[in-house]
Amino acid sequence: MADSSRKIRSVTPSRDLDISLIMEDLVAEVLQGSVRAMARLIAVVENEDPRSFEFLGSIYPHTGRAHVLGITGSPGTGKSTLTDKITSVLRRQEKTVGVVAVDPSSPFTGGALLGDRIRMQRASGDPDVFIRSMATRGNLGGLARTTADVIKIMDGFGKDWVIVETVGVGQDEVEIAKTADTTIVVLAPGLGDAIQSMKAGVMEIADLYVINKADRSGADALVTEVRIRVEQDAQIKKAAWRAPVLKTVAVEDQGTEPLLEAIESHRSFLEESGRLKKVRREKTRQETLSLLKEEISRNVLEKILGNGRFDDLIDDIIAHRKDPYTSVKEIVGTIFPDEE
Amino acid sequence: MADSSRKIRSVTPSRDLDISLIMEDLVAEVLQGSVRAMARLIAVVENEDPRSFEFLGSIYPHTGRAHVLGITGSPGTGKSTLTDKITSVLRRQEKTVGVVAVDPSSPFTGGALLGDRIRMQRASGDPDVFIRSMATRGNLGGLARTTADVIKIMDGFGKDWVIVETVGVGQDEVEIAKTADTTIVVLAPGLGDAIQSMKAGVMEIADLYVINKADRSGADALVTEVRIRVEQDAQIKKAAWRAPVLKTVAVEDQGTEPLLEAIESHRSFLEESGRLKKVRREKTRQETLSLLKEEISRNVLEKILGNGRFDDLIDDIIAHRKDPYTSVKEIVGTIFPDEE
Repeated sequence: MADSSRKIRSVTPSRDLDISLIMEDLVAEVLQGSVRAMARLIAVVENEDPRSFEFLGSIYPHTGRAHVLGITGSPGTGKSTLTDKITSVLRRQEKTVGVVAVDPSSPFTGGALLGDRIRMQRASGDPDVFIRSMATRGNLGGLARTTADVIKIMDGFGKDWVIVETVGVGQDEVEIAKTADTTIVVLAPGLGDAIQSMKAGVMEIADLYVINKADRSGADALVTEVRIRVEQDAQIKKAAWRAPVLKTVAVEDQGTEPLLEAIESHRSFLEESGRLKKVRREKTRQETLSLLKEEISRNVLEKILGNGRFDDLIDDIIAHRKDPYTSVKEIVGTIFPDEE
Repeated sequence: MADSSRKIRSVTPSRDLDISLIMEDLVAEVLQGSVRAMARLIAVVENEDPRSFEFLGSIYPHTGRAHVLGITGSPGTGKSTLTDKITSVLRRQEKTVGVVAVDPSSPFTGGALLGDRIRMQRASGDPDVFIRSMATRGNLGGLARTTADVIKIMDGFGKDWVIVETVGVGQDEVEIAKTADTTIVVLAPGLGDAIQSMKAGVMEIADLYVINKADRSGADALVTEVRIRVEQDAQIKKAAWRAPVLKTVAVEDQGTEPLLEAIESHRSFLEESGRLKKVRREKTRQETLSLLKEEISRNVLEKILGNGRFDDLIDDIIAHRKDPYTSVKEIVGTIFPDEE
């Protein structure tokens, strides 16, 4: 935190006593299209700086315009290349693009740095593509919360599309996928775990399936298998949307244009069926709840547990003079006095 | 929750109006050694029933005696078989054993049920081995919190050892590993990701390494590689404990006895160096914090967000009449009035 405020200070040295004013300036710069200001605000969010609430509040009225596209799949399915190619198609349509590449598989920083370097190369030269890699940072809100905030900054900046690229299909990824309007699940022949992973919640989040590396043997069988599952699932749930299954060879840019048409179809479906409203309402609800929990946790840590009182309590618990459950009930009783 | 209380009611039908008394009875039964009562209390904990706080408080004074052994490793390393064999050695020493098999890779229930069936077979016939499989349930506290509570129930019941078996090395697993006194990381030759996974935080949690399936080619090379890493890491951190690297062939029960001796050595080290106290203090601190956050979240959901007020707020946020960040600050301001 000290680090990020130092960086911010160096931008406007004359106002270094009033962080709020500096934040206001940065927000104004973001809304005017400053990439540098956007990168700075994202860093503040990633560091879980409590001041991020202030400027995110100022950016919020300018959000809700970008279409958020989630791209998820196991390592080796080629989803980074696919993200690249989709970005290229969008750029040919003169749309601006923000990419958030989330890599929770490396909780100990190294991964995202390497990723950043690789992805920098992809983006080089196009000022209308902004790419940010993120690994897990901090504890308060988790990766899903930070990702949601970064999407909002890119959205408020004016990006037409924000692409969120995630690895794998763990719980974190399912959470993150819920921040997208349209989610693509990328599979590839020969990885073995495709159908396996479909059991673990993928059906819940996929709006489109892409069988990438479709020039490999086994691609058509995989397409058929996924289509059967989608059909079964849609019948059980009486779903209005049936996830299409498309083939691509991303490295050779094959199938990218039809994929984008399918994405646009899903977008139209969301808007015309009224589902976009429902989806975004649920998203807003979840995000606001997460914010609330995070902010309460921060206050508990700072105020309830300050002054060594918490350490005394832990001593009592370890000595079995108190138990953690009753003690927690008591503390919470002081915060919510009507607690029976 | 309705389900679990129904189950409890059917045990003591004459008192079905007073759940607290029934809980007291169940706790008394657990402390007297009733396996059925233990299974019921674990179910209440898994369902995140708020009443679990009451009986966990009553059980807490009877905890702290079991040695908690964590066993973690990627799928295919054979850690379930290893858990079985370690359990057998402990049983030959007339120790009682509880096993918590955590499978967060299947967030959508199916996995744990299957696991239960497989593991039931392992345990059949020995009343002094209690095995419980768990997948992710609920949202409030997460798997690490629930696992910690289940360990406490088994500990309070009187198990000499509680073994926590987890899959993989994601963030959840690192969290769960922190609930153990001694953590074994299981690797196997030929899986490829062994050294890869060691980068991602495994060094932080491993007290012992086991190279299982050591009759396969590549085992000795893997042992050497891991030993070098342990040595480097120990020198950097000036660690008092150097994680030993042992070879086993669990399916043939080779190497299990030496492994148990190594576990006992680590246990002695923890006790004699005073580290057990430190480790358990940190565990107690983390668990109490998690409890606190969970209980506050529950209260916020029930009291602050009741009466449709939260839905009204979401309407305002979606219409951009309010922003989530400022709104959350306001709500938290009413809970913590001295919030500046």
